[in-house]
Amino acid sequence: MINNDLIKNLLNNERRAVARSISLVESDNEFSAELLKRIYTSVGRAYRIGITGPPGAGKSTITNFLSKYYRTKDKKVGVIAVDPTSPFTGGALLGDRIRMSELVNDKGIFVRSMATRGSLGGLSKKAVDAADVLDAAGYDIIIFETVGVGQSELDIAQAADTTIVVLVPESGDTVQAMKAGLMEIADFFVMNKSDRPASEQAVMALKSILGLREHNADTWMPSIIKSIATENKGINEIAEEVDKHHQYLNNTGNFIKRRENRAKQRIKDIVEEKIRRELWGESRENSLNSSLENVVLGNLSPYHIAEKIIEDFKKNL
Amino acid sequence: MINNDLIKNLLNNERRAVARSISLVESDNEFSAELLKRIYTSVGRAYRIGITGPPGAGKSTITNFLSKYYRTKDKKVGVIAVDPTSPFTGGALLGDRIRMSELVNDKGIFVRSMATRGSLGGLSKKAVDAADVLDAAGYDIIIFETVGVGQSELDIAQAADTTIVVLVPESGDTVQAMKAGLMEIADFFVMNKSDRPASEQAVMALKSILGLREHNADTWMPSIIKSIATENKGINEIAEEVDKHHQYLNNTGNFIKRRENRAKQRIKDIVEEKIRRELWGESRENSLNSSLENVVLGNLSPYHIAEKIIEDFKKNL
Repeated sequence: MINNDLIKNLLNNERRAVARSISLVESDNEFSAELLKRIYTSVGRAYRIGITGPPGAGKSTITNFLSKYYRTKDKKVGVIAVDPTSPFTGGALLGDRIRMSELVNDKGIFVRSMATRGSLGGLSKKAVDAADVLDAAGYDIIIFETVGVGQSELDIAQAADTTIVVLVPESGDTVQAMKAGLMEIADFFVMNKSDRPASEQAVMALKSILGLREHNADTWMPSIIKSIATENKGINEIAEEVDKHHQYLNNTGNFIKRRENRAKQRIKDIVEEKIRRELWGESRENSLNSSLENVVLGNLSPYHIAEKIIEDFKKNL
Repeated sequence: MINNDLIKNLLNNERRAVARSISLVESDNEFSAELLKRIYTSVGRAYRIGITGPPGAGKSTITNFLSKYYRTKDKKVGVIAVDPTSPFTGGALLGDRIRMSELVNDKGIFVRSMATRGSLGGLSKKAVDAADVLDAAGYDIIIFETVGVGQSELDIAQAADTTIVVLVPESGDTVQAMKAGLMEIADFFVMNKSDRPASEQAVMALKSILGLREHNADTWMPSIIKSIATENKGINEIAEEVDKHHQYLNNTGNFIKRRENRAKQRIKDIVEEKIRRELWGESRENSLNSSLENVVLGNLSPYHIAEKIIEDFKKNL
């Protein structure tokens, strides 16, 4: 049972309650579901921004300055930074952990790092749950920052109202982004480190690729904002473009449509995760283990074993 | 029902039957399960190599020359290249498609590109199924080539007896590989483009990171092979290291253990995929859709909806 005080303190944005609630949803047990069931009427007010792109593109720096920008507008900002962690230390890399330290004394900002390794696919669920916690606590803007290299990272970036893809002018970066599926999720692009020589060329290349996309007057057309994030250049323009996109979503009814799509995927994830847990209880796991030798030796087909497990699951529900 | 001739021709390595069988497992329907159930006694003889690494590291070139090397040793080689595809064209990028064209007239090599976009997570299952098809057709070596940037790509690289991680001496590449989880899956590393100035430094950095790993005399310690793949330099050394790792696996009993772990994960994937299909039939999908508006408006919690769906699933099995 979740303590009533935890809920009350969370809804009052008390830092310790927020931190504890996020830890709860990260642990992803029965309490996490209970917590989220008790706060959902307070969820849905925050505007959610996804920031993604290849490693080294400057996502952290942009997140940092964009958070500061929103603070000057008196918006409370929650950041969920999804850090791929080192397999050796088991923790997030130091650089990521400390990057927002200049903001730690500001009560209007809350930064949480989440690790990707060992999360076994539940990561995007946990990131969205954590965003709901921050939303309920009254943060106005929630930023998901994640490296754009993998399905679950893309899922997180898309759990947003506006998704920003950050690129740098390196040769091949645009093509790689295209291959990684980043092009189709971008509501707009940021060409960071735009003081580099190849910058103009990279913007042109990106524009010509975007030109391939069919669009008409009613369709949102992703633009390209240039920035030099380390010098805080281009941040205002990024925030303005977020606003513009927000207005577009509102004017076209796409805001609700987009959130409905997200809710749908999320409910499916919750359902599937719960069924997966019932499925792989100890006894079924053991019987699977005892069949493996024969599968490797070619005496049993993996597909036969799978069918038997499904039969057993249905019989014992 | 699968035609008996298809099975017979596949087992005789007739190219059209191999191609058709892979298309079948790619479509991932009832026929694909039937096909795999009928060939499993012929599966398990091929040695499987995973080649992964960041975009642009030279994986395709290494795969190309390594395939040629094995052909000179009279080994039949099957390649499964997992191509992230462009969201705009829907197909694999041209460069990937044509890269092995010099080998297309060799009957001892079979190259298949698989696309990542739109595969909805079933990709590693399909890649392993395709490898089983090639294995049954008598290919001695199967190479999975995949970009190392995402869980499903890592899963594919690990569906191998030996996993090779290819890096280049670019600044930050090693750190990014560490963050992406590439370090722990490598049986050995290839530092490609090792004629570049920063090469020695990159090898040293990698060595010092690897030194963090605990190991004793019985443990395999990943080494670092230097290559200049575009000039066919280092390819023999890569093949020798694969052999050395194969011997290590055999001598320690890890060969069977590793294949058992893979079989386990694979059976779980098959089971979960099948249950997922039963779960999301039309009527349940419709009832989910009709609840979404209320979820977005904050009238219903996603967790409540999820519980109702699970109840309904259990009642109607």
